Amino acid sequence: MGRSYDTVTFLSDYGLADEFVGVVKSVIRSIAPEVTVIDLTHDIDAHDVRGGGLALARSAQYLVPGVVLAVVDPGVGTPRRAIAIEVGEGQSVLVGPDNGLLAPAVAMVGGADRAVVLDNTDYHLPAPGPTFAGRDVFAPVAAHLCNGVDLAELGALVDPITLLPGLMPITREEDGGIVAEVLWVDRFGNAQLNVDPEEIASWGDRVGLRFAEATRTARRAETYGALKPGEIGLIVDSYGLLAVSVDRGSAAAELGLHAGAPVTLEPFTDEEDNSVPIRLGNRR
Amino acid sequence: MGRSYDTVTFLSDYGLADEFVGVVKSVIRSIAPEVTVIDLTHDIDAHDVRGGGLALARSAQYLVPGVVLAVVDPGVGTPRRAIAIEVGEGQSVLVGPDNGLLAPAVAMVGGADRAVVLDNTDYHLPAPGPTFAGRDVFAPVAAHLCNGVDLAELGALVDPITLLPGLMPITREEDGGIVAEVLWVDRFGNAQLNVDPEEIASWGDRVGLRFAEATRTARRAETYGALKPGEIGLIVDSYGLLAVSVDRGSAAAELGLHAGAPVTLEPFTDEEDNSVPIRLGNRR
Amino acid sequence: MGRSYDTVTFLSDYGLADEFVGVVKSVIRSIAPEVTVIDLTHDIDAHDVRGGGLALARSAQYLVPGVVLAVVDPGVGTPRRAIAIEVGEGQSVLVGPDNGLLAPAVAMVGGADRAVVLDNTDYHLPAPGPTFAGRDVFAPVAAHLCNGVDLAELGALVDPITLLPGLMPITREEDGGIVAEVLWVDRFGNAQLNVDPEEIASWGDRVGLRFAEATRTARRAETYGALKPGEIGLIVDSYGLLAVSVDRGSAAAELGLHAGAPVTLEPFTDEEDNSVPIRLGNRR
Repeated sequence: MGRSYDTVTFLSDYGLADEFVGVVKSVIRSIAPEVTVIDLTHDIDAHDVRGGGLALARSAQYLVPGVVLAVVDPGVGTPRRAIAIEVGEGQSVLVGPDNGLLAPAVAMVGGADRAVVLDNTDYHLPAPGPTFAGRDVFAPVAAHLCNGVDLAELGALVDPITLLPGLMPITREEDGGIVAEVLWVDRFGNAQLNVDPEEIASWGDRVGLRFAEATRTARRAETYGALKPGEIGLIVDSYGLLAVSVDRGSAAAELGLHAGAPVTLEPFTDEEDNSVPIRLGNRR
Repeated sequence: MGRSYDTVTFLSDYGLADEFVGVVKSVIRSIAPEVTVIDLTHDIDAHDVRGGGLALARSAQYLVPGVVLAVVDPGVGTPRRAIAIEVGEGQSVLVGPDNGLLAPAVAMVGGADRAVVLDNTDYHLPAPGPTFAGRDVFAPVAAHLCNGVDLAELGALVDPITLLPGLMPITREEDGGIVAEVLWVDRFGNAQLNVDPEEIASWGDRVGLRFAEATRTARRAETYGALKPGEIGLIVDSYGLLAVSVDRGSAAAELGLHAGAPVTLEPFTDEEDNSVPIRLGNRR
Repeated sequence: MGRSYDTVTFLSDYGLADEFVGVVKSVIRSIAPEVTVIDLTHDIDAHDVRGGGLALARSAQYLVPGVVLAVVDPGVGTPRRAIAIEVGEGQSVLVGPDNGLLAPAVAMVGGADRAVVLDNTDYHLPAPGPTFAGRDVFAPVAAHLCNGVDLAELGALVDPITLLPGLMPITREEDGGIVAEVLWVDRFGNAQLNVDPEEIASWGDRVGLRFAEATRTARRAETYGALKPGEIGLIVDSYGLLAVSVDRGSAAAELGLHAGAPVTLEPFTDEEDNSVPIRLGNRR
């Protein structure tokens, strides 16, 4: 027997309108009645493996040790592998599809210790069809892990190097600027960038931002409340990355930003006129 | 005293924007502090008794034994009866309005053993108004059942035959085809039909589908991933019923399907041209 | 050590699409593993302090004793104070920003016994940025309270009289009518007014309602089901206040109502013609 766990942290793209999430929890409780399930979120966009992976990675350092069940699985039923990955010397196990979803979080906590492909069907439910692996494969596996079943019981051990990596966009320098990307737009309209504040530490208080169709000047600020009405802020967000924000409004809505949108940061020069958005190129 | 339970599985049309669900859970915890509540879903369309009943029935075989609390109750406050139904020789008790909501799930698990009308107000909360039975009647009753109060304490026993049945649409044959119906469209746009794969077992790989305004040919497939881009699939879904699906897209959006929409399945004949949707009849 | 608690009731404007709520729960469980978190709702409109305060106040008398964690916090990171308020002789503690959010609920349960400003950072998490106080300040404080840390350990005691009050709209009489306001529109479209049924006890069965752009006659009714199709009802809702309702439909959608909308109630006089909405004044 392996270590046992009392918490399953659960992220998916199942949404809350259907009964999928509730059924997964019921299956877990049927097998491991003492376990508490914490919903991380189930509103990852359908099939958005990158968005799910980023949400897991943002959360990783705050998660209570235990089993992490993550299901964003557009390839369900195909030969994509179902996997479990042990991290932190057994402190936690991540369970989900091998499609890059788990990789960013695994990297955040120091990499994989062991990994298995979930091919031992003794620990699965019999399934009427192959399309609800959350219920039939991942939930029972998560519950059995909680009960102390060792990782190696669940299937064949595989070299973690063979697991599909997550693709994290990195910045690049170009003409003295930094070509970056929006990682995430949160409920409040803050647009998190893949930029560490260290990258612009020498730039001073004002930073030029070039979006697909506009150029604006942002001001570095500590909090939303330090921004004036209408002012674009560049703040260090609660994950330690730079985010484009406005006070009591949605920066994303105002600037037309979404996850994946390109943003170029440039050192501020006086000659720019940034009071109004500037259209780049013709539009019909 | 009756049997006691440690789980309440909770489905409703309360949504999550208001505090209804949280208040119901708080009432349950006030009376039965050790009980875990599992949310099945609260996003059943407002007053959609059929949709709620189908979600319960789909889940029934996966639910952990205990109390099932289901509230989709357009007649709240009227003389519609509030009921509790014992199933599985006391393994579970379903609590909710007597409007057909519970009937499909009860049928799925072998029928009712005993049923009561919840007319013993000793087990209810005093209510400022009659419109929140979830809080004032169903939640306290569910909690008292968990604590071991016997069903017969909660009100007058009634013959289960007098309970309002759920109406499940059945298919009919017509001109060699099967006139069916969409039971449910899930988050991913799969349209579950009320058709058992056995009904078309002899039909071969291709199946004609006639919708209200289009005719298409679907291909039987094991998984979404086996479908080519643009191809309509007919798969056995995770509940063992046929569903109309496309790979990484919404079949329902593409074909204009919704719960209750009619679909006729027809054995495939070569002469059909199914490459584009065909309008039937004039439209202005 | 103070009293310990086993329940945190959690309300916020975080929504469920991001991982904020899950991370807060994970932080609580890391510090206080035995505690159950009940979600009251997380769909308070972003930054809607009034809406959050009303939801808490409506729920207050039904909440299980323990810690109430409430975060609607447009001023996060600014010098607005973070506070904890003990009520009911230590039966419960409310934790959140000092912006009026907690005040209506505190008033509902008899007022504050003690209050502290959460300035003892020993009970906070180290934060990469100042914008996620739910995770870094409020969640750890709530968890430590559950573990028996006394309120006075968490920061400087302050006189409850210095806390920001919540603003509850009160009615006023005008020309024999009552000028009131919509407090809340629920999922079903019922529009709760800030009017106690006692205020119109002498008025009889029919009541004139003047909205911004229409005048209608409502009929007092016990339940939605007692209303005829198309009829506007004035019912005593499940919180004991008057609500504008229609049967199996949304009164708010039909009448264009929203939280904060003004409504004037007038004793019914025969001469009114209320069969159709009447436009008041010119519109271009």
